[in-house]
Amino acid sequence: MAAKKWAYEDLREGLVLPLPERLVTAEEIIEFAREFDAQPMHLDEEAGRESLLGGLASSGWHSSAIFMRMMCEAFLLDSTSEGSPGITELRWKKPVLAGDLLSGSSTVLARRILRSRPGMGLVTFRHMVTNQHGETVLEGENPILFRLREAGGAV
Amino acid sequence: MAAKKWAYEDLREGLVLPLPERLVTAEEIIEFAREFDAQPMHLDEEAGRESLLGGLASSGWHSSAIFMRMMCEAFLLDSTSEGSPGITELRWKKPVLAGDLLSGSSTVLARRILRSRPGMGLVTFRHMVTNQHGETVLEGENPILFRLREAGGAV
Repeated sequence: MAAKKWAYEDLREGLVLPLPERLVTAEEIIEFAREFDAQPMHLDEEAGRESLLGGLASSGWHSSAIFMRMMCEAFLLDSTSEGSPGITELRWKKPVLAGDLLSGSSTVLARRILRSRPGMGLVTFRHMVTNQHGETVLEGENPILFRLREAGGAV
Repeated sequence: MAAKKWAYEDLREGLVLPLPERLVTAEEIIEFAREFDAQPMHLDEEAGRESLLGGLASSGWHSSAIFMRMMCEAFLLDSTSEGSPGITELRWKKPVLAGDLLSGSSTVLARRILRSRPGMGLVTFRHMVTNQHGETVLEGENPILFRLREAGGAV
Protein backbone atom coordinates (compact mmCIF):
# COMPACT_ATOMS: atom_id res chain seq x y z
CA MET A 1 0.00 0.00 0.00
CA ALA A 2 1.35 3.45 -0.89
CA ALA A 3 2.40 5.61 2.06
CA LYS A 4 -0.36 7.94 3.18
CA LYS A 5 0.20 11.67 3.00
CA TRP A 6 -1.19 12.47 6.44
CA ALA A 7 0.00 10.52 9.48
CA TYR A 8 -0.13 11.59 13.13
CA GLU A 9 3.29 13.23 12.82
CA ASP A 10 2.04 15.62 10.13
CA LEU A 11 -0.97 16.90 12.05
CA ARG A 12 0.67 19.52 14.19
CA GLU A 13 -1.18 21.93 16.43
CA GLY A 14 -2.46 24.95 14.55
CA LEU A 15 -2.42 23.26 11.14
CA VAL A 16 -5.41 24.46 9.07
CA LEU A 17 -6.72 22.03 6.44
CA PRO A 18 -9.08 23.69 3.94
CA LEU A 19 -12.16 21.70 2.93
CA PRO A 20 -13.21 21.55 -0.73
CA GLU A 21 -16.31 23.34 -2.00
CA ARG A 22 -19.52 21.39 -2.22
CA LEU A 23 -22.86 22.38 -3.76
CA VAL A 24 -25.94 21.08 -1.95
CA THR A 25 -28.87 20.25 -4.22
CA ALA A 26 -32.60 20.01 -3.46
CA GLU A 27 -32.57 16.44 -4.78
CA GLU A 28 -29.97 15.19 -2.33
CA ILE A 29 -31.60 17.03 0.59
CA ILE A 30 -34.89 15.25 -0.14
CA GLU A 31 -33.24 11.88 -0.80
CA PHE A 32 -31.36 11.91 2.51
CA ALA A 33 -34.44 13.12 4.40
CA ARG A 34 -36.61 10.35 2.97
CA GLU A 35 -34.20 7.79 4.31
CA PHE A 36 -33.17 9.25 7.66
CA ASP A 37 -35.06 12.39 8.71
CA ALA A 38 -38.46 12.72 7.03
CA GLN A 39 -39.51 15.94 8.76
CA PRO A 40 -41.49 18.22 6.40
CA MET A 41 -38.91 21.05 6.28
CA HIS A 42 -36.35 18.61 4.82
CA LEU A 43 -38.75 17.20 2.19
CA ASP A 44 -40.68 20.11 0.77
CA GLU A 45 -39.85 23.66 -0.30
CA GLU A 46 -43.10 25.16 0.98
CA ALA A 47 -42.96 23.34 4.32
CA GLY A 48 -39.38 24.57 4.62
CA ARG A 49 -40.38 28.17 3.96
CA GLU A 50 -43.08 27.96 6.61
CA SER A 51 -40.65 26.49 9.16
CA LEU A 52 -38.00 28.21 11.26
CA LEU A 53 -35.45 27.15 8.64
CA GLY A 54 -36.88 29.44 5.97
CA GLY A 55 -36.61 27.12 2.98
CA LEU A 56 -35.93 23.55 1.88
CA ALA A 57 -33.12 22.80 4.33
CA SER A 58 -30.96 19.74 4.81
CA SER A 59 -31.26 17.59 7.91
CA GLY A 60 -28.50 18.50 10.36
CA TRP A 61 -27.32 14.91 10.01
CA HIS A 62 -27.12 15.36 6.26
CA SER A 63 -25.11 18.58 6.63
CA SER A 64 -22.82 16.64 8.96
CA ALA A 65 -22.43 13.78 6.47
CA ILE A 66 -21.66 16.26 3.68
CA PHE A 67 -19.04 17.86 5.93
CA MET A 68 -17.58 14.36 6.52
CA ARG A 69 -17.29 13.86 2.77
CA MET A 70 -15.53 17.22 2.44
CA MET A 71 -13.11 16.14 5.18
CA CYS A 72 -12.54 12.77 3.45
CA GLU A 73 -11.68 14.50 0.19
CA ALA A 74 -9.50 17.09 1.91
CA PHE A 75 -7.26 14.71 3.83
CA LEU A 76 -8.87 11.73 5.60
CA LEU A 77 -8.80 9.32 2.63
CA ASP A 78 -5.09 9.98 2.22
CA SER A 79 -4.34 9.59 5.91
CA THR A 80 -3.66 6.92 8.53
CA SER A 81 -7.09 7.59 10.15
CA GLU A 82 -8.50 4.79 12.30
CA GLY A 83 -11.83 6.52 12.92
CA SER A 84 -13.18 8.61 15.74
CA PRO A 85 -14.68 7.96 19.18
CA GLY A 86 -17.29 10.69 18.67
CA ILE A 87 -18.13 14.36 18.61
CA THR A 88 -17.31 16.69 21.46
CA GLU A 89 -19.68 19.33 20.17
CA LEU A 90 -21.58 19.96 16.96
CA ARG A 91 -23.60 23.07 16.22
CA TRP A 92 -25.92 23.53 13.26
CA LYS A 93 -25.72 27.31 13.38
CA LYS A 94 -27.65 28.24 10.23
CA PRO A 95 -29.83 26.20 7.89
CA VAL A 96 -28.15 24.63 4.86
CA LEU A 97 -30.55 25.45 2.03
CA ALA A 98 -30.93 23.92 -1.42
CA GLY A 99 -28.41 25.60 -3.73
CA ASP A 100 -25.96 26.51 -0.98
CA LEU A 101 -22.26 26.24 -1.81
CA LEU A 102 -20.34 25.04 1.23
CA SER A 103 -16.67 25.28 2.07
CA GLY A 104 -14.75 25.16 5.33
CA SER A 105 -11.73 24.12 7.30
CA SER A 106 -10.49 21.68 9.92
CA THR A 107 -7.90 23.02 12.35
CA VAL A 108 -5.74 20.90 14.63
CA LEU A 109 -6.40 22.03 18.21
CA ALA A 110 -4.39 19.47 20.14
CA ARG A 111 -2.89 16.00 19.86
CA ARG A 112 -1.40 13.30 21.98
CA ILE A 113 0.13 9.86 21.53
CA LEU A 114 -1.92 7.13 23.17
CA ARG A 115 -0.16 5.00 25.76
CA SER A 116 -3.05 2.53 25.59
CA ARG A 117 -2.68 1.95 21.85
CA PRO A 118 0.93 1.70 20.68
CA GLY A 119 1.65 3.45 17.39
CA MET A 120 -1.47 5.59 17.57
CA GLY A 121 -2.37 9.15 18.48
CA LEU A 122 -5.50 11.19 19.00
CA VAL A 123 -5.82 14.48 17.10
CA THR A 124 -8.52 16.94 18.15
CA PHE A 125 -9.90 19.17 15.40
CA ARG A 126 -12.02 22.28 15.32
CA HIS A 127 -14.22 22.10 12.22
CA MET A 128 -16.04 24.92 10.51
CA VAL A 129 -18.32 24.86 7.47
CA THR A 130 -19.50 28.09 5.84
CA ASN A 131 -21.94 28.93 3.05
CA GLN A 132 -21.54 31.20 0.01
CA HIS A 133 -22.48 34.24 2.15
CA GLY A 134 -19.61 33.58 4.54
CA GLU A 135 -21.99 32.48 7.29
CA THR A 136 -20.96 29.56 9.49
CA VAL A 137 -23.54 26.79 9.06
CA LEU A 138 -21.81 24.01 11.01
CA GLU A 139 -19.20 24.16 13.72
CA GLY A 140 -17.81 21.35 15.77
CA GLU A 141 -14.99 19.71 17.58
CA ASN A 142 -13.95 16.08 17.48
CA PRO A 143 -11.00 13.78 18.07
CA ILE A 144 -9.78 11.41 15.34
CA LEU A 145 -7.35 8.49 15.76
CA PHE A 146 -4.33 8.38 13.45
CA ARG A 147 -1.54 5.81 13.22
CA LEU A 148 1.98 7.13 13.57
CA ARG A 149 4.07 6.86 10.44
CA GLU A 150 6.88 5.40 12.46
CA ALA A 151 5.73 3.49 15.52
CA GLY A 152 7.90 4.69 18.39
CA GLY A 153 9.50 7.33 16.19
CA ALA A 154 10.29 10.80 17.46
CA VAL A 155 7.47 13.30 17.00
CA MET B 1 -53.46 19.17 9.61
CA ALA B 2 -54.17 16.55 12.28
CA ALA B 3 -53.00 17.40 15.78
CA LYS B 4 -49.60 15.94 16.55
CA LYS B 5 -49.25 13.43 19.33
CA TRP B 6 -46.14 14.95 20.86
CA ALA B 7 -45.99 18.67 21.65
CA TYR B 8 -43.73 20.46 24.13
CA GLU B 9 -46.31 19.95 26.89
CA ASP B 10 -46.09 16.16 26.58
CA LEU B 11 -42.34 15.91 26.86
CA ARG B 12 -41.94 15.99 30.60
CA GLU B 13 -38.66 15.49 32.43
CA GLY B 14 -37.87 11.81 32.94
CA LEU B 15 -40.08 10.61 30.07
CA VAL B 16 -38.41 7.64 28.32
CA LEU B 17 -39.29 7.15 24.66
CA PRO B 18 -38.27 3.71 23.35
CA LEU B 19 -36.75 3.62 19.85
CA PRO B 20 -37.82 0.91 17.39
CA GLU B 21 -35.51 -1.92 16.39
CA ARG B 22 -33.45 -1.55 13.26
CA LEU B 23 -31.28 -4.11 11.45
CA VAL B 24 -28.13 -2.69 9.85
CA THR B 25 -27.09 -4.41 6.64
CA ALA B 26 -23.70 -4.62 4.91
CA GLU B 27 -25.28 -3.14 1.77
CA GLU B 28 -26.45 0.05 3.47
CA ILE B 29 -23.15 0.45 5.36
CA ILE B 30 -21.25 0.35 2.06
CA GLU B 31 -23.76 2.57 0.24
CA PHE B 32 -23.58 5.32 2.88
CA ALA B 33 -19.78 5.07 3.07
CA ARG B 34 -19.41 5.40 -0.72
CA GLU B 35 -21.29 8.67 -0.58
CA PHE B 36 -20.06 10.26 2.64
CA ASP B 37 -17.21 8.42 4.37
CA ALA B 38 -15.21 6.20 2.01
CA GLN B 39 -12.69 4.97 4.57
CA PRO B 40 -11.72 1.31 3.93
CA MET B 41 -13.22 -0.07 7.19
CA HIS B 42 -16.66 1.20 6.09
CA LEU B 43 -16.40 -0.26 2.56
CA ASP B 44 -14.86 -3.68 2.88
CA GLU B 45 -15.23 -6.63 5.25
CA GLU B 46 -11.54 -7.54 5.24
CA ALA B 47 -10.36 -3.95 5.72
CA GLY B 48 -12.86 -3.71 8.58
CA ARG B 49 -11.50 -6.85 10.24
CA GLU B 50 -7.96 -5.52 9.99
CA SER B 51 -8.99 -2.16 11.50
CA LEU B 52 -9.66 -1.24 15.12
CA LEU B 53 -13.39 -1.71 14.40
CA GLY B 54 -13.02 -5.49 13.93
CA GLY B 55 -15.39 -5.91 10.97
CA LEU B 56 -17.35 -4.10 8.29
CA ALA B 57 -18.58 -1.21 10.44
CA SER B 58 -20.84 1.72 9.67
CA SER B 59 -19.50 5.26 9.55
CA GLY B 60 -20.28 6.99 12.85
CA TRP B 61 -22.29 9.48 10.78
CA HIS B 62 -24.28 6.61 9.33
CA SER B 63 -24.97 5.18 12.80
CA SER B 64 -26.10 8.67 13.79
CA ALA B 65 -28.41 8.96 10.77
CA ILE B 66 -29.89 5.53 11.51
CA PHE B 67 -30.48 6.64 15.10
CA MET B 68 -32.21 9.76 13.72
CA ARG B 69 -34.51 7.57 11.66
CA MET B 70 -35.32 5.48 14.73
CA MET B 71 -36.15 8.70 16.61
CA CYS B 72 -38.32 9.93 13.70
CA GLU B 73 -40.32 6.69 13.73
CA ALA B 74 -40.57 6.65 17.52
CA PHE B 75 -41.99 10.15 17.97
CA LEU B 76 -40.47 13.00 15.95
CA LEU B 77 -42.65 12.59 12.84
CA ASP B 78 -45.75 12.74 15.01
CA SER B 79 -44.53 15.77 16.96
CA THR B 80 -44.36 19.56 16.76
CA SER B 81 -40.56 19.40 16.25
CA GLU B 82 -38.95 22.46 14.65
CA GLY B 83 -35.49 20.93 14.43
CA SER B 84 -32.41 21.15 16.57
CA PRO B 85 -29.54 23.60 17.07
CA GLY B 86 -27.03 20.79 17.37
CA ILE B 87 -25.48 18.05 19.44
CA THR B 88 -24.10 18.64 22.89
CA GLU B 89 -22.20 15.38 22.87
CA LEU B 90 -22.15 12.27 20.73
CA ARG B 91 -20.13 9.17 21.46
CA TRP B 92 -19.66 6.24 19.11
CA LYS B 93 -18.85 3.82 21.91
CA LYS B 94 -18.68 0.53 20.00
CA PRO B 95 -18.59 -0.24 16.28
CA VAL B 96 -21.94 -0.88 14.55
CA LEU B 97 -21.22 -3.99 12.47
CA ALA B 98 -23.08 -5.44 9.48
CA GLY B 99 -25.92 -7.59 10.82
CA ASP B 100 -26.30 -5.69 14.10
CA LEU B 101 -29.83 -5.21 15.41
CA LEU B 102 -30.12 -1.81 17.08
CA SER B 103 -32.63 -0.49 19.57
CA GLY B 104 -32.54 2.30 22.12
CA SER B 105 -34.25 5.11 23.93
CA SER B 106 -34.48 8.88 24.17
CA THR B 107 -35.02 10.29 27.67
CA VAL B 108 -36.13 13.84 28.46
CA LEU B 109 -33.44 15.39 30.67
CA ALA B 110 -34.70 18.96 30.89
CA ARG B 111 -36.91 21.47 29.13
CA ARG B 112 -37.68 25.16 29.06
CA ILE B 113 -40.00 27.52 27.24
CA LEU B 114 -38.12 30.02 25.09
CA ARG B 115 -38.70 33.68 25.81
CA SER B 116 -37.04 34.52 22.50
CA ARG B 117 -39.44 32.39 20.44
CA PRO B 118 -43.05 32.63 21.55
CA GLY B 119 -44.94 29.34 21.51
CA MET B 120 -41.79 27.26 21.48
CA GLY B 121 -39.73 25.28 23.94
CA LEU B 122 -36.39 23.51 23.98
CA VAL B 123 -36.32 19.89 25.17
CA THR B 124 -32.97 18.29 26.00
CA PHE B 125 -32.72 14.54 25.46
CA ARG B 126 -30.28 11.86 26.48
CA HIS B 127 -30.14 9.30 23.66
CA MET B 128 -28.83 5.76 23.84
CA VAL B 129 -28.58 3.14 21.11
CA THR B 130 -27.68 -0.46 21.94
CA ASN B 131 -26.92 -3.57 19.86
CA GLN B 132 -28.27 -7.11 20.14
CA HIS B 133 -25.66 -7.90 22.82
CA GLY B 134 -26.94 -5.10 25.04
CA GLU B 135 -23.82 -3.02 24.42
CA THR B 136 -24.23 0.73 24.01
CA VAL B 137 -23.02 1.68 20.53
CA LEU B 138 -24.08 5.33 20.46
CA GLU B 139 -24.77 7.75 23.27
CA GLY B 140 -25.54 11.41 23.05
CA GLU B 141 -27.29 14.47 24.28
CA ASN B 142 -29.07 17.11 22.25
CA PRO B 143 -31.75 19.78 22.47
CA ILE B 144 -34.73 19.78 20.09
CA LEU B 145 -37.20 22.63 19.55
CA PHE B 146 -40.92 21.84 19.88
CA ARG B 147 -43.94 24.08 19.43
CA LEU B 148 -46.33 24.28 22.34
CA ARG B 149 -49.72 22.76 21.69
CA GLU B 150 -51.32 25.84 23.14
CA ALA B 151 -49.27 28.98 22.75
CA GLY B 152 -49.24 30.64 26.15
CA GLY B 153 -51.03 27.65 27.69
CA ALA B 154 -50.20 26.43 31.16
CA VAL B 155 -47.50 23.75 31.24
